[in-house]
Amino acid sequence: MQRGKWNAITDVPGVKVGHVTLYDESGMGSACTGVTALLPHDRNLFEEKVPAASFVLNGFGKSVGLIQVEELGVIESPIMLSNTFSVGAVLEGTLQHMLAENPAIGDSTSSLNIVVGECNDSYLNSMRELKVRANHAIEAIRNAEEGPFEQGAVGAGKGMVCFGRKGGIGSSSRTVPNEGEEVLTVGVLTLTNFGRADECRIDEWLARNSTEIKSASRPLKISEEMEHEKPDGSIMIIVATDAPLNDRQLKRLAKRASIGLGRTGSTVHNGSGDIIIAFSNAYTIPHKSEDVTNNYTVLRDDAPIMNKLFKAAIEATEEAVYQSMIHAQTTVGRKGRVVERWLFDVESGAIQNK
Amino acid sequence: MQRGKWNAITDVPGVKVGHVTLYDESGMGSACTGVTALLPHDRNLFEEKVPAASFVLNGFGKSVGLIQVEELGVIESPIMLSNTFSVGAVLEGTLQHMLAENPAIGDSTSSLNIVVGECNDSYLNSMRELKVRANHAIEAIRNAEEGPFEQGAVGAGKGMVCFGRKGGIGSSSRTVPNEGEEVLTVGVLTLTNFGRADECRIDEWLARNSTEIKSASRPLKISEEMEHEKPDGSIMIIVATDAPLNDRQLKRLAKRASIGLGRTGSTVHNGSGDIIIAFSNAYTIPHKSEDVTNNYTVLRDDAPIMNKLFKAAIEATEEAVYQSMIHAQTTVGRKGRVVERWLFDVESGAIQNK
Amino acid sequence: MQRGKWNAITDVPGVKVGHVTLYDESGMGSACTGVTALLPHDRNLFEEKVPAASFVLNGFGKSVGLIQVEELGVIESPIMLSNTFSVGAVLEGTLQHMLAENPAIGDSTSSLNIVVGECNDSYLNSMRELKVRANHAIEAIRNAEEGPFEQGAVGAGKGMVCFGRKGGIGSSSRTVPNEGEEVLTVGVLTLTNFGRADECRIDEWLARNSTEIKSASRPLKISEEMEHEKPDGSIMIIVATDAPLNDRQLKRLAKRASIGLGRTGSTVHNGSGDIIIAFSNAYTIPHKSEDVTNNYTVLRDDAPIMNKLFKAAIEATEEAVYQSMIHAQTTVGRKGRVVERWLFDVESGAIQNK
Amino acid sequence: MQRGKWNAITDVPGVKVGHVTLYDESGMGSACTGVTALLPHDRNLFEEKVPAASFVLNGFGKSVGLIQVEELGVIESPIMLSNTFSVGAVLEGTLQHMLAENPAIGDSTSSLNIVVGECNDSYLNSMRELKVRANHAIEAIRNAEEGPFEQGAVGAGKGMVCFGRKGGIGSSSRTVPNEGEEVLTVGVLTLTNFGRADECRIDEWLARNSTEIKSASRPLKISEEMEHEKPDGSIMIIVATDAPLNDRQLKRLAKRASIGLGRTGSTVHNGSGDIIIAFSNAYTIPHKSEDVTNNYTVLRDDAPIMNKLFKAAIEATEEAVYQSMIHAQTTVGRKGRVVERWLFDVESGAIQNK
Repeated sequence: MQRGKWNAITDVPGVKVGHVTLYDESGMGSACTGVTALLPHDRNLFEEKVPAASFVLNGFGKSVGLIQVEELGVIESPIMLSNTFSVGAVLEGTLQHMLAENPAIGDSTSSLNIVVGECNDSYLNSMRELKVRANHAIEAIRNAEEGPFEQGAVGAGKGMVCFGRKGGIGSSSRTVPNEGEEVLTVGVLTLTNFGRADECRIDEWLARNSTEIKSASRPLKISEEMEHEKPDGSIMIIVATDAPLNDRQLKRLAKRASIGLGRTGSTVHNGSGDIIIAFSNAYTIPHKSEDVTNNYTVLRDDAPIMNKLFKAAIEATEEAVYQSMIHAQTTVGRKGRVVERWLFDVESGAIQNK
Repeated sequence: MQRGKWNAITDVPGVKVGHVTLYDESGMGSACTGVTALLPHDRNLFEEKVPAASFVLNGFGKSVGLIQVEELGVIESPIMLSNTFSVGAVLEGTLQHMLAENPAIGDSTSSLNIVVGECNDSYLNSMRELKVRANHAIEAIRNAEEGPFEQGAVGAGKGMVCFGRKGGIGSSSRTVPNEGEEVLTVGVLTLTNFGRADECRIDEWLARNSTEIKSASRPLKISEEMEHEKPDGSIMIIVATDAPLNDRQLKRLAKRASIGLGRTGSTVHNGSGDIIIAFSNAYTIPHKSEDVTNNYTVLRDDAPIMNKLFKAAIEATEEAVYQSMIHAQTTVGRKGRVVERWLFDVESGAIQNK
Repeated sequence: MQRGKWNAITDVPGVKVGHVTLYDESGMGSACTGVTALLPHDRNLFEEKVPAASFVLNGFGKSVGLIQVEELGVIESPIMLSNTFSVGAVLEGTLQHMLAENPAIGDSTSSLNIVVGECNDSYLNSMRELKVRANHAIEAIRNAEEGPFEQGAVGAGKGMVCFGRKGGIGSSSRTVPNEGEEVLTVGVLTLTNFGRADECRIDEWLARNSTEIKSASRPLKISEEMEHEKPDGSIMIIVATDAPLNDRQLKRLAKRASIGLGRTGSTVHNGSGDIIIAFSNAYTIPHKSEDVTNNYTVLRDDAPIMNKLFKAAIEATEEAVYQSMIHAQTTVGRKGRVVERWLFDVESGAIQNK
Repeated sequence: MQRGKWNAITDVPGVKVGHVTLYDESGMGSACTGVTALLPHDRNLFEEKVPAASFVLNGFGKSVGLIQVEELGVIESPIMLSNTFSVGAVLEGTLQHMLAENPAIGDSTSSLNIVVGECNDSYLNSMRELKVRANHAIEAIRNAEEGPFEQGAVGAGKGMVCFGRKGGIGSSSRTVPNEGEEVLTVGVLTLTNFGRADECRIDEWLARNSTEIKSASRPLKISEEMEHEKPDGSIMIIVATDAPLNDRQLKRLAKRASIGLGRTGSTVHNGSGDIIIAFSNAYTIPHKSEDVTNNYTVLRDDAPIMNKLFKAAIEATEEAVYQSMIHAQTTVGRKGRVVERWLFDVESGAIQNK
């Protein structure tokens, strides 16, 4: 399937991504973490909610906001990512941002549901120090832009570890021709923090996809420290599309992302919070309306394009995981722990990271 | 069915409840809110987790932590209650408390799942001002005690409105004879913030239960302000028991609490977050163990006592809602809004609140 | 709230109900059972599917077809009710009926999902003898008509027992004014087979609803045989509406029906299969379409009428249970067991059944 | 990971599998279908229930019995597989078998929950003719044996199509060393009827697993008839283990099987019923007991072996799909349609099926 222009979730028109990275440059420091904000569209998210759903593949995770997404089928805030212990601060910062933008919330209109996802970056980040504060969430939202964005060891991905080497933020997209000349896009953003080195299937993927990268060099040996000290990781997967789908259909799309994850080699460890959030920005649901009804046009379940969208979600998820590895740089974190980047053999024969 | 000694959730041995109330005594002030902490037992909750489950009757709510409860079937933190916009602060305060108590969390052992529930008290409380801070959560946990505790307009219940008059924190319990001389207890704590005046069925309940209260005087007329400005409310229900039940069985118990709620007259409005959390402290699951197995003894699903426990959860939930009304005092909140207490006609004929 | 013209689920335009009753008139016989068919509208159900959802309050039940309803959000067959051991025969009979009507199913188009619900009537019916055959399902479908229909000990309700006396099929409806002169209807049909005599709250309901019935006489004493031999029962609840709701909203409506059930006194016993199915026939989803999209107009979640529909579902469910008792006649079943009708005191003072 | 002795689900001690195949040998005939029965252990299944759970990856399916499995966490019958339109007949036949074995069911004790799964074999089988009858289900149960069993185009798999060529019944197993000398086993049985030829990833799997098969020859071109007439298929996956897991943990195991499915290339089409059932026979739950409690010993979620069991379920599911293809023979079905076997290139260079 075709990739979108940026091969990123921002190929879905209107989607914006922004990061704040916290890092103690001394290399021994406590902070090796950050916040990533994803905006489903570029207008007021509370006033124009997007249809959404989630799927919990493994619920060893502390995501916030998914109960209301399940009940009402909408997301009405930025989707925020950070480390496990920063959920409270990020929740509060995002709330502050939304309250500032929407004076009626919690005053003359109802409350607000904020979505936050997390992974545990405590191998590299002194998570107990709670370095992420509310303002970092606000800053990440303000940093959000359309177009290409930084991936790898950045934002919420700064301290994450994927298959025993450096992971973090990765993204990919696929386009699907619809009727006429219309093209629909499925974009995926992952926060990768899972897996054992021997499980990774990137070689198969490289062989299958003729890229300039010819092979990947997996860790020969995981340090004893990592073996014993690193808890089971997690992955957050966000699936965006401009295909007109309702919340029920988006749950189906979210389930397919778990297939893409499985293809990377994940065995979905006990201690892994593997959570998928899917939304469409093809249409929005107004917060208030003069009408007592809403009108929607959504794809039929049996439209042939539906299976293609499923496949797009699978492929983009699989690649988004690998892109987090391809982009990530060797990172030194707490206690001087080093997590090396993945090494790739490009056509020229030289070993280098992209 | 028999009530426990305190007719409260603290009749389940080991359960502790504590409040922090924030109130601007000027009566026009912004703060009319608080935090309530419930400790499932009196030992280290992270080291000795309790089996638990939840049931979402209506998911227009922002509770935190329930995804992991569903996956692993345990609660490993205090259960915290506050207003909708304080979830972040309460989450962070509870985290700080747990980190201080458990130096290994997020360092050499895994992360921590915290459970927070909320209702929207914005009719009386200037929720947008985010007056609840992390330290209030810590304080509520430290205030937690066994035995009877304050109910009504206190703690998280300070600004809540139930059936058009003052609600808040209410509790009740039922005891169920088991084999031999053993008595099992089901206790319920509710944070009530729901319902229209004309829906309330307290009269039927009073007639059915010979108490010293003979009748309740419902609001003759809800102020236009309340009619138009108050959003649909919510209810948080916590069900505790010392009956040996596993997480699957506790989900069944949680579902029964929704029956008790329905009997009070609730019609589970669209905008209501009606969420039930149930746990047992009959046994605990150790965080770490030398063994690769755990051993449990739990009630059989077809044990006759199971239906009695279900009934106990229903009755105690119904009464806990009413107890929140019986205990609540007239409260003046933001914009000078007044929410009157419920008035009850006791045997002597005098109108008075208990 | 106002009742519809027939105070029955058939007040929802297009809905049809039909029964087949199997009864050995000798009074000692084996057969005391039947089949009830509910048609969501009067056209081809496979070609024009209705949006639908279900809610499992207690899953000690053997309903068929709900997995696909959850996935696709539609019902494409009659909704069939019978006894627990007849599910296979009813499934096959309904399939035969649908295949005859739709030559393409299983040949040139996809397969078919049939919905069957059941309760255990083995106290009065020799359920092991499998007297219900495929043709009885077909006959029940063919018997289905609009307008008023027989209730009580009829069709699938022939052998059911409710609160220790005779139950079976009951129905009720409520109307809700919408914009302009439009009136929306919520209708409920119940198959009642649950509860202990001392749990029943019909007296409260009678006092609340000024009907010609003034009081109900509950069984003074349940026979020892019933006490020991009758298993925990079940209830099937079908909620129909012509309000334009999607599958997500219908699940919410289904959950409210459980509140109505709870108000009758049910404590949702361990062995009870308490399952609710809700559908709307305000619009249909075509099996095949030239278009790749469907267009829907559905009520907004925050439309004030939504809470009224919720209340309508609660009230109609509560009354439908009682109507099953009001209509049911004393019935003699297997082993000569007698289950007496409920007795009601009408205005004249005479004790009689309606 | 190591395979078990038979590389089949029957490597889990006590598990038995039996088939009945219905086939019109004329090669143009209507019947090309069957029934497969899986017995979780070799004793009375109703008297000694096994802990169980299911996971619905895609609910376009008509499986029976999963609601009660979810509520009670047990399976109490054989697990039956057949074609979509035979569910009713198989349900009834299995019921007859269980009633004959258990005179108390539906008489003096409660009813019975039977589990049936299905796939749509209408491309090769004249499914509308309902050739499978109740007695075929009974026969399949009676045919069930321990040890190796026939795979491929047999039993319920007779008419199934996998990735555009012949599929059907496939099985595989993995063993996991536990403490001491104990070995735990995870076995999987699949009924494969899904996928497009271009999605299949068997080549990667063959390369990864050094078997005597060196490569697989996928269909060069799917016939236009198959392209247009074959509906989206389905897969039923049954996961058995003798590891002591409870129902919550078995749901986790079931979810992992979906990862194994995804690795074969499935993109989980819209019209696919992809349903996984998992059980353990490490311990059983007695139907009746003198005690009011049950006692269990189950693996801790954080026991290192848990992740290995997850991996075993993934690997065995992946291979079970391929084994269904490896064993299947070219089959002629209704309308003279031919579905060819998969061709494999073994070491000698000869093209042959195993």
